[in-house]
Amino acid sequence: MRQSRRGDVDPFIVMDVMEKARAAEAAGRHIIHMEVGQPSTPAPAGARRALAAAMETGPLGYTVALGLPALRARIAQHYAEWHGVDLDPARVVVTAGASAGFVLAFTALFDAGERVGLGLPGYPSYRHILKALSLDPVGIETAMEDRFQPRPDQITADLSGLIVASPGNPAGTMLSRDSLAALIAQCREMDVTLISDEIYHGLHYDRPAVSALELTGDAFIINSFSKYFSMTGWRIGWMVVPQSHVRQVERLAQNLFICPSHASQVAALAAFDCHEELDANRSVYAANRQLMIDGLAAAGFPSFAPPDGAFYVYADSRHLSDDALALSGRILDEAGVAVTPGLDFDPVRGRGMLRFSYARSTADIVEGLGRLKEWAERA
Amino acid sequence: MRQSRRGDVDPFIVMDVMEKARAAEAAGRHIIHMEVGQPSTPAPAGARRALAAAMETGPLGYTVALGLPALRARIAQHYAEWHGVDLDPARVVVTAGASAGFVLAFTALFDAGERVGLGLPGYPSYRHILKALSLDPVGIETAMEDRFQPRPDQITADLSGLIVASPGNPAGTMLSRDSLAALIAQCREMDVTLISDEIYHGLHYDRPAVSALELTGDAFIINSFSKYFSMTGWRIGWMVVPQSHVRQVERLAQNLFICPSHASQVAALAAFDCHEELDANRSVYAANRQLMIDGLAAAGFPSFAPPDGAFYVYADSRHLSDDALALSGRILDEAGVAVTPGLDFDPVRGRGMLRFSYARSTADIVEGLGRLKEWAERA
Repeated sequence: MRQSRRGDVDPFIVMDVMEKARAAEAAGRHIIHMEVGQPSTPAPAGARRALAAAMETGPLGYTVALGLPALRARIAQHYAEWHGVDLDPARVVVTAGASAGFVLAFTALFDAGERVGLGLPGYPSYRHILKALSLDPVGIETAMEDRFQPRPDQITADLSGLIVASPGNPAGTMLSRDSLAALIAQCREMDVTLISDEIYHGLHYDRPAVSALELTGDAFIINSFSKYFSMTGWRIGWMVVPQSHVRQVERLAQNLFICPSHASQVAALAAFDCHEELDANRSVYAANRQLMIDGLAAAGFPSFAPPDGAFYVYADSRHLSDDALALSGRILDEAGVAVTPGLDFDPVRGRGMLRFSYARSTADIVEGLGRLKEWAERA
Repeated sequence: MRQSRRGDVDPFIVMDVMEKARAAEAAGRHIIHMEVGQPSTPAPAGARRALAAAMETGPLGYTVALGLPALRARIAQHYAEWHGVDLDPARVVVTAGASAGFVLAFTALFDAGERVGLGLPGYPSYRHILKALSLDPVGIETAMEDRFQPRPDQITADLSGLIVASPGNPAGTMLSRDSLAALIAQCREMDVTLISDEIYHGLHYDRPAVSALELTGDAFIINSFSKYFSMTGWRIGWMVVPQSHVRQVERLAQNLFICPSHASQVAALAAFDCHEELDANRSVYAANRQLMIDGLAAAGFPSFAPPDGAFYVYADSRHLSDDALALSGRILDEAGVAVTPGLDFDPVRGRGMLRFSYARSTADIVEGLGRLKEWAERA
């Protein structure tokens, strides 16, 4: 039976690791999960309460495609509060998670066959979504000394678009204001449209991340309630788009999605009143991060770029193996710690890298680092 | 700034009608809404209760991409109960509404430039989603005497796919078992992949709709919790795909959506235990439908195919005007009834057609038909 070529995207390697970890647990072993990509905390209590109330007072039918006006206004206010930017709520598009934001941005901007740049290592779904939309993902190899972010000289006129993520996944590293400004200037020079993935904003530890919106009105900004707001499973996020693109994105959203989940929009609006709970979650990540920075070298992984945000460390493992998938299997078997091989994030150089997540509890991080240290000493 | 050609999809004409109706209401007029495309009832009480409980007991993080195993199993059981079909739950894909089902089906099946047939009149987003995915929608003009469904002789080998909907929108007409079987046979003969939109299943009045799954294992079946299950705003639906396509659809779903809303999946699972409430909703539609069939002629619209399901009547209005948009404006102004011009469903012949929805309360339908009758007598 007919199958498309563009639908033939790669499977996630991390799924193999997760399946092995699940099988080990089913067999009675205790596993520390440093492979996870999401908070283990629920949506904040205020968000859940707001939805419980809304379910009893209205039908929660379709909303307009761009999202509840009150939520769009609240998101605009958020840019004033966090970034000192005065944003017209009309430019805010509520989306079914950042995933829907990427689909909308890519279809609004690019026609089949166009080339879109993205840093390697990077979130694997960028490449796969682009391929599924008949676009051509162009990997840009970044370096640890550049904090795993692309440099302006790597942005060339044969690209139609560029995706940057700050803080990024898998390394948690950020672009400084100057570095982001230099990329924006180069994109303008080369007529490359910038898509700024800001889904880890709010999960920063030394200084807040810079939004591309502080520097330009011409970028597509993608954000999400999944990480700082702890609402992964709710599939709710947002975009900020140039004024010139609002109507087009609205028509695409009407057809491709109708609207984001009404229930999730109600919960998301209330989540803005839950900073106390959310900042407490972040304090846990901050403690975990410090434990990782202090303990990973002793655990056998001395080489990584210190993470500025998110909840990941991306560490060199070439001194142990040039097959990160096999290495992660050994670490799972021998140390009882699940980690992600770099291959999902960088199909070639990822063979020599591992991603460690510190999204779980501090007790888990202490235990995991202890197990890794013991394992490193045995090895 | 860069804009794609494929993103340049048509706006919905019905939005103009809805905006005019909103403005009339804001100015103090009472409007009867026969333009709506969704139930006014909420998700069933049992579904809301299940979610309220689940919010307090777990984090509701990401689910696996294909959906909660219990929900996939329950959907498979539904095919045994309603259609007498033994379905492997592995073939069930939970989606973020039927919208996500279309995006997954089209990307899994077709490469850029391929031609996909669809009946006119039909749901406008078929055409627009196809265009946004760089596919080529091919309109197939259907006739009232064919119950607005395509005939096998219209399915030709230059198509890669065919979308059918039974009951369809805007006419609510169904394909008989024999007609659907003939279309399936022709698709097989012409190597055309069938996508069967079954989102109005459960909302039938004389006899239940036939699922393509009763007749073939090679079609993509799209369904939704929006209509019979009364959960539009929850954005939750499902697909049944051929065994050969499960892994590919899974990889696409992981990347394009990560997962459907966890909260909506919990509510959807519980909705299967709410048939009493849902069948009561359907009884209202059944009464409304009979009122429409009995009253539309007196209200000035004698020519339509009697609807088998859904909650729409698609009626000829050429005796009144060859400009359905202007006509719907007149009906709104002069009768206080909002109706949808056919243009969204059929860009050419829709100029002479109107869609009347009977999704609202029976009292509204009685009042709306009364207003239309008075208007027809005055005109």
